[in-house]
Amino acid sequence: MENNEPYVPEPAISRLPWYLACVSRLRAQGVEYVSTTAISQELNVESSQIAKDLSYLSIKGKTRIGYEVKELERGLYDFLGFRREHKAVMMGVGSLGSALIADSGLSRYGLDIVAGFDVNPDVVGRSLNGKPIYPLSELSRRVGELGAEIAVIAVPVESCAEVAEMCVAAGIKALWNFTPFRIRTAPDVVVQNTSIYAHLAVMYNRMPRHKD
Amino acid sequence: MENNEPYVPEPAISRLPWYLACVSRLRAQGVEYVSTTAISQELNVESSQIAKDLSYLSIKGKTRIGYEVKELERGLYDFLGFRREHKAVMMGVGSLGSALIADSGLSRYGLDIVAGFDVNPDVVGRSLNGKPIYPLSELSRRVGELGAEIAVIAVPVESCAEVAEMCVAAGIKALWNFTPFRIRTAPDVVVQNTSIYAHLAVMYNRMPRHKD
Repeated sequence: MENNEPYVPEPAISRLPWYLACVSRLRAQGVEYVSTTAISQELNVESSQIAKDLSYLSIKGKTRIGYEVKELERGLYDFLGFRREHKAVMMGVGSLGSALIADSGLSRYGLDIVAGFDVNPDVVGRSLNGKPIYPLSELSRRVGELGAEIAVIAVPVESCAEVAEMCVAAGIKALWNFTPFRIRTAPDVVVQNTSIYAHLAVMYNRMPRHKD
Repeated sequence: MENNEPYVPEPAISRLPWYLACVSRLRAQGVEYVSTTAISQELNVESSQIAKDLSYLSIKGKTRIGYEVKELERGLYDFLGFRREHKAVMMGVGSLGSALIADSGLSRYGLDIVAGFDVNPDVVGRSLNGKPIYPLSELSRRVGELGAEIAVIAVPVESCAEVAEMCVAAGIKALWNFTPFRIRTAPDVVVQNTSIYAHLAVMYNRMPRHKD
C-alpha cells in the first residue's frame, strides 16, 4: 500500500458494512449517540469486537455516551471507500453482466461501471444503461482511456483465466470475480470472489430436502 | 435434515463448485479421467483436501486413474442441488432485484425466481422478464400458491428485518440476503449472506490508493 494507514484484517473490513447499515438505520430514526453495546445487541457481534473494529477508524467514542451517529456513519462511509469513485469495466455482458451494469445501487457504493466488454457480435457496439459495450479485442487500448482500475468478471467459466490475464496485462489493479473459477494472478493484483454459486449450494444443502 | 445424508461442512460445500467448474472445463476439452492431483494443480487446493471433499459424494475414483470426468461432473451437479428446481421469490425489485430477476444464469443453477414483491406502485402489477410483481401485502397468500421455498432479499436495508420476518411467517424456508443487514431468525430457517458491499469494501481497501 502506498499510504501509511494500518493494515486492517479482512474479517474486520467485512464487518464494517454491517455497522454502517446499523448506524444508518439509527440516524434515520433520529438517534444521536450509539454505544458498541447497542450495536452489539442489533448485530449479535461481541461489543469488544465492535470496539476493536472501529478502532481502525480515526473516530473516537465518548465514555458512557458512545459514538456520535452521524459522525460514525460518515466515518464508516469514508473508510470503506464508498464515497470515492472507482471506475470499473464489466467483462462479459451476458445475463449476470447486464444485470450488474443495470444495478445502479453499485454506484452508490462507489463502483462506477463505465463500459462493458464482450465477444458476442449481438451485444458489441450497442450500449446498456448508457454504457458502451466494446469488443474484447479493444480491452488493452480502452482501459487506460477509460481510467478503469477494476474489472468485474462475469464471463463463461471457461474464459475466466484468459480474461483475467488480459485485464491484468491491460493495467487493471483489481478483479471482482463472479465466476466459480479460482483466479491466480500477480500478488499486487487484488482479487475478490463473490461466489454466488457456492452460496446457492450451501443454501440448497442446508434446506430440508424432499425425497425426489 | 430429513434425510440420512452425512453433514457436510460449509467450507467443503463452498469448494465443490470450484471442482465442478474445473471438471466441466476438462470435459469440454475431451479429457476422460482426472486425478485429485491434477485438480489440485489447477485450483491451488491441497490434493488431500480435494479427496476428502469429494468423499462426501457417492462417487469413487480409481487408483492411479482417478475420477471419470463425466461421472464426476454429473455427481457434483446433483450433489450441489443445481439440477433440482428451487422456487424463489424476489423481495424488492429495485435495481439489484430487477437485475437478479433478469439473470437467467441463476436458473441454470437450480434457482427459479417465480415472482417479485415490492411496495413501489410504479412496479407492482407489472411483470419483469415474464415474472409478475405483486404487492408486499400479498406475500403470505402468494407464497403457498407459488410453491416458493426461498426468498432472495434485495430490499432497502431499513426494511430487511421486517421483510425477513414476513417471509418466514409466510412459510419461506431459506433467505438469500443481499443487504448488509444481519438477519437473525429461527434456527430451522437457512440464511445465506452474499455480502457484495463487504467484497467491494475489501477490494477498495486492498487497492493501492491515490492521495485524494
